[in-house]
Amino acid sequence: MVIAAVSTSATQSMTGADRLCDALLAHDVDVCFANPGTSEMHFVAALDRQPRMRCILGLFEGVVTGAADGYARMSDRPAATLLHLGPGLANGLANMHNARRAHSPMINIVGDHAVEHLPLDSPLTSDIDSLARPMSRWVRRIADPTRIDHDVAEAWAQSMAPGISTLILPADMAWNEHVYREDLARGERLPQAPLEQATVARVGAAIRGGRKVVLLLTGAALREGALRIADGIRRATGVEIYAQGSNGRIERGRGRAPIAKLPMTHEGGGPLLRGVDMLVLIGAKEPVSFFAYPNRQGRLAPPSCEIVRLAGPDQDLPHALAWLADEVGVKIDASPMATSAPENPSNGALTVDAVNRLVAARLPEQAIICDEALTSSGFFDYSYDAPPHDYLQITGGAIGIGIPMAAGAAVACPDRKVINLQADGSGMYTVQGLWTHARENLDVVTIVFSNRSYATLWGEMSKVGAQTPGRNAQRMLQLDQPELDWTKLAGGLGVESSRVSTVSEFSRALDAALGRRGPYLIEAIV
Amino acid sequence: MVIAAVSTSATQSMTGADRLCDALLAHDVDVCFANPGTSEMHFVAALDRQPRMRCILGLFEGVVTGAADGYARMSDRPAATLLHLGPGLANGLANMHNARRAHSPMINIVGDHAVEHLPLDSPLTSDIDSLARPMSRWVRRIADPTRIDHDVAEAWAQSMAPGISTLILPADMAWNEHVYREDLARGERLPQAPLEQATVARVGAAIRGGRKVVLLLTGAALREGALRIADGIRRATGVEIYAQGSNGRIERGRGRAPIAKLPMTHEGGGPLLRGVDMLVLIGAKEPVSFFAYPNRQGRLAPPSCEIVRLAGPDQDLPHALAWLADEVGVKIDASPMATSAPENPSNGALTVDAVNRLVAARLPEQAIICDEALTSSGFFDYSYDAPPHDYLQITGGAIGIGIPMAAGAAVACPDRKVINLQADGSGMYTVQGLWTHARENLDVVTIVFSNRSYATLWGEMSKVGAQTPGRNAQRMLQLDQPELDWTKLAGGLGVESSRVSTVSEFSRALDAALGRRGPYLIEAIV
Repeated sequence: MVIAAVSTSATQSMTGADRLCDALLAHDVDVCFANPGTSEMHFVAALDRQPRMRCILGLFEGVVTGAADGYARMSDRPAATLLHLGPGLANGLANMHNARRAHSPMINIVGDHAVEHLPLDSPLTSDIDSLARPMSRWVRRIADPTRIDHDVAEAWAQSMAPGISTLILPADMAWNEHVYREDLARGERLPQAPLEQATVARVGAAIRGGRKVVLLLTGAALREGALRIADGIRRATGVEIYAQGSNGRIERGRGRAPIAKLPMTHEGGGPLLRGVDMLVLIGAKEPVSFFAYPNRQGRLAPPSCEIVRLAGPDQDLPHALAWLADEVGVKIDASPMATSAPENPSNGALTVDAVNRLVAARLPEQAIICDEALTSSGFFDYSYDAPPHDYLQITGGAIGIGIPMAAGAAVACPDRKVINLQADGSGMYTVQGLWTHARENLDVVTIVFSNRSYATLWGEMSKVGAQTPGRNAQRMLQLDQPELDWTKLAGGLGVESSRVSTVSEFSRALDAALGRRGPYLIEAIV
Repeated sequence: MVIAAVSTSATQSMTGADRLCDALLAHDVDVCFANPGTSEMHFVAALDRQPRMRCILGLFEGVVTGAADGYARMSDRPAATLLHLGPGLANGLANMHNARRAHSPMINIVGDHAVEHLPLDSPLTSDIDSLARPMSRWVRRIADPTRIDHDVAEAWAQSMAPGISTLILPADMAWNEHVYREDLARGERLPQAPLEQATVARVGAAIRGGRKVVLLLTGAALREGALRIADGIRRATGVEIYAQGSNGRIERGRGRAPIAKLPMTHEGGGPLLRGVDMLVLIGAKEPVSFFAYPNRQGRLAPPSCEIVRLAGPDQDLPHALAWLADEVGVKIDASPMATSAPENPSNGALTVDAVNRLVAARLPEQAIICDEALTSSGFFDYSYDAPPHDYLQITGGAIGIGIPMAAGAAVACPDRKVINLQADGSGMYTVQGLWTHARENLDVVTIVFSNRSYATLWGEMSKVGAQTPGRNAQRMLQLDQPELDWTKLAGGLGVESSRVSTVSEFSRALDAALGRRGPYLIEAIV
């Protein structure tokens, strides 16, 4: 990383916390999702002196980090988070895990005790560094407040690589005053590793030679322009293209290339890769099954399949596709792709399928879909010819991302409608995030698929041979005693809502929710 | 640790998961707080074959670990928890942190991918070992399913030391079948380090020599019998006795020694220790301020004060007190201590003080109080002459323990009333736990002090000199836009409730809640 001094308000006496704020703002990090505590009060005071920084409270740290993930996916830049010591960080780790898998930029500021206080092991003391590392790309404990802007510059550069940067801020590093004689350091983006010409040539030769090739895409390769290139290669050469099983963001809908996701199951992904000679990874990882099962290989590609990494997630993926198109002599057609409008479901009892089809049919132009529907998923299959939209999904399998991610996406894109397709069991993990929807008046419609069970797990139970689950299994997998009432939960958190159980009820509620601004929740009994 | 083979159902073919269940039950670990996922399905199936194991679902892992903490505090033995890979563990870490500070026994079973699947880095993969260590006393990754009972034996012994044991269970260790030819291994308790005679003599000499001595107690030293010894020493010799600032459990109320807690603040704890010559730690840690502040020492005892560790939390604390009583020639009076009944507050608007006084006055015999009231605390001051009860409080400063801890205490003691004094901001962290109250029909009354702010932090803001908080500070510290409606939240989770704002309304609601069995929530507007 190159650090260049840039002009700002130098030669001032200010606290380390003020300097940290200035440094974040110098990198245009101007949103801070927060749940602060006592050890962060000087940073809170510094934020309070900076009206340019938008501070957004989450009532639980999983909301904070999940919102930062959603924000990053839609804005391609990091938000800051503010977390309270080890337990506050710990509460945010699960959604940091999802963000890590989505390659989202994020800068965590984690408060810690003052340097001299730390060895006294007062009750809130814990090993923050060890807790941070598994989910972070980069971790630093601030040790010199006069260099705090350099730490932020590096945190920013690492986050844009992309990944999660965690800065641990001891309280005295925040509260002590210093005279800063130098302008703020500014991070520059880390250089991307160049693509290898030999690899491009190898893939090109395989395609031209008529071998059965699959391109597996994720990250920036799933934005409209890159997708168009990939689809152009597909149409001209007969390669197949898939998005990887879970992705941070897909630009999707009418006029865009209708890519499918490669399921991370033996039943789903396995057959699609049968007979494939070469699998080309473009930002993606080699496809494996999400979980392991007895006597089954984790790898989904057949052993004979050659796996070629054309570009990693930290390389220029659109360029990789463009170069490959050149290599195989494909010209990309810039005219919109013709697709047909989706059908509307008819009336009757509400099903998962009907909800997903109706949402696809009624989707506002440039909506943002957050998909944590899990066993109630299906929207994606109907969405290729819905109006143009962005599709965000759970990436790391850590449930509880939907409500927070929707909040972050809405903060990043205040003029776009956000629709969160939410499984009920997962939604309960970070239900507190609905309060943030209300507080910030975010334009989010939450659709809860209320099936009153961990439905994923019922399927998994049958796979292990327990066909008739007994009392203990039922007590751990069913959510129906008592039934969750999502309209009351939403009401308790300040979000208006309705409960529907027929197609026509859902249709009316959806129209009403899409016709207004601000948060709304629909509990769909399915 | 000594491991002795004990007779059970040996020479059987069974899965590792079945063997793990058997091994837990052999140690009388017969409650499992759980939120399982796919990688734990074989363990779920094994639990399903063991009706003796009581499986209790939490809708979030912070509920699971907090409940295990509450259970351990009241039963003095570990519950098992069942957690889903790294993110599931991460979600449970904050309340593991509290449990660690309470010296609660706990055995976590954390599922992981099968051994061969792990290097494939499928989406839910993370570094579980690193995440577990900061909050665990002992961590083991199960590597040999034929030795799984030995792992459990050691996990149990370590948990009783006391502390948190974390067993990482790769899926294939659970699903593979083996013929177990040996009886189940059984853990024996780790030997306690003996007390040092010289230390007892040194403390005894200081007391007899008329030096100003303070005994600081926690853990088993706060049970009725040990407290009576400590109070006997106090009355006979003039030493002072305090409980440490936060404690896992205090046996409290009429007829028991009315010990005070030593506040972990400069303003509270500092003056109480002024002029003290010797501070004797009996399970306790040296008192320090909870947080650091500029230009203040973290240690609360004056530099001249000699600090003597008579016994650590893993030693026999009641014995330490009895020995010290002998050393100073004090005979302990076994007759109940005379105390007076607390006064009832009069009518009028509801205040924090009125709530706490009324709860103390109306307390059912042998009730269990869970105290996460934070700035609304005060109950403890009125409780010394309330009916005999147990007092559990937040120990590690990781908010969100109240609702789960109450659940665990109620599971451990089904015939006793549990009353959870709950700050609103903290309660929102693990509000999902109310659903477990309803599902298990736990006899818990939750009293929410609804002040619509992180009131602790307002006080802290003023300490850092920000007297007139601006928009950003208000947005991060206030919970009033929108107001949380706890009666709706409770209703959404299946718990009956009422909202009260006067003394007489609260009084009636409290009487009604105490007069019935099962969960109830009172939102006290204060």
